[in-house]
Amino acid sequence: MTHKATKIVIITEKLIVEGVTKIIEEAGASGYTMVQAAGKGSRGVRSSGRPAVVDAFANVKVEVITATRDMAEQIADKVAARYFDNYSGITYLEEVEILRPHKF
Amino acid sequence: MTHKATKIVIITEKLIVEGVTKIIEEAGASGYTMVQAAGKGSRGVRSSGRPAVVDAFANVKVEVITATRDMAEQIADKVAARYFDNYSGITYLEEVEILRPHKF
Amino acid sequence: MTHKATKIVIITEKLIVEGVTKIIEEAGASGYTMVQAAGKGSRGVRSSGRPAVVDAFANVKVEVITATRDMAEQIADKVAARYFDNYSGITYLEEVEILRPHKF
Repeated sequence: MTHKATKIVIITEKLIVEGVTKIIEEAGASGYTMVQAAGKGSRGVRSSGRPAVVDAFANVKVEVITATRDMAEQIADKVAARYFDNYSGITYLEEVEILRPHKF
Repeated sequence: MTHKATKIVIITEKLIVEGVTKIIEEAGASGYTMVQAAGKGSRGVRSSGRPAVVDAFANVKVEVITATRDMAEQIADKVAARYFDNYSGITYLEEVEILRPHKF
Repeated sequence: MTHKATKIVIITEKLIVEGVTKIIEEAGASGYTMVQAAGKGSRGVRSSGRPAVVDAFANVKVEVITATRDMAEQIADKVAARYFDNYSGITYLEEVEILRPHKF
């Protein structure tokens, strides 16, 4: 009674969350979830010269369940192209099983 | 040295978190984790007529590792049946590998 | 255009987060993400005799994407060996697909 879907996870700076969610909505996703996050990234650089280790919860982890894998990759590519030269961020995909497909 | 298990994720309104965790415990799960979340859902409706986009962290993301897939589906079905006609919410499953099975 | 990687998730008490992230860095991981979490564990005991159900967000969920599965298991084993006799905690692995491998 489940069907497979793709979850895309975007972890990035809170500063750009509005732009990220705009990309998600423009891609046609019906919703997203975000949580406040802290962390340390691989690049050791952040916008505004702030240190790489952020004790305050200045990052955000955004998750989107997409009906198609194409949509997931499209969101990831657009977010990376628009922001990741200047802001810290990572994206990855996970396979999930949705129990109530009509909700997505 | 790992063994497969199922993780169920429930993202819903904080208002009903006590009822959700009660369902989880009644199903026999030995624990759960929750984080505060914000987000936008597909339904565009929420209880109490609040707007669909919630800037405050009024949602909660609950995760449960279950020993059997049956238990995961049982939890998801009960939460959906009891709450999702009146509250925003989604559930999905992920396959995980547990490193310390005796802890679950 | 993606490649597989392993995500390790560690959910434990906030008290030991510095020790946990030190283990992660010593293992050679290039970054990690953490979110504040609440929850109820299977053991029913916590350090300092605090109750098992923590309404305040006194836990932390730490995620690490590792390039190799060996690194993921090494982190999990070290964290468990050093802390889980005395602190509540669980670890599990998930398979993910990275879209920008050069970032890890």
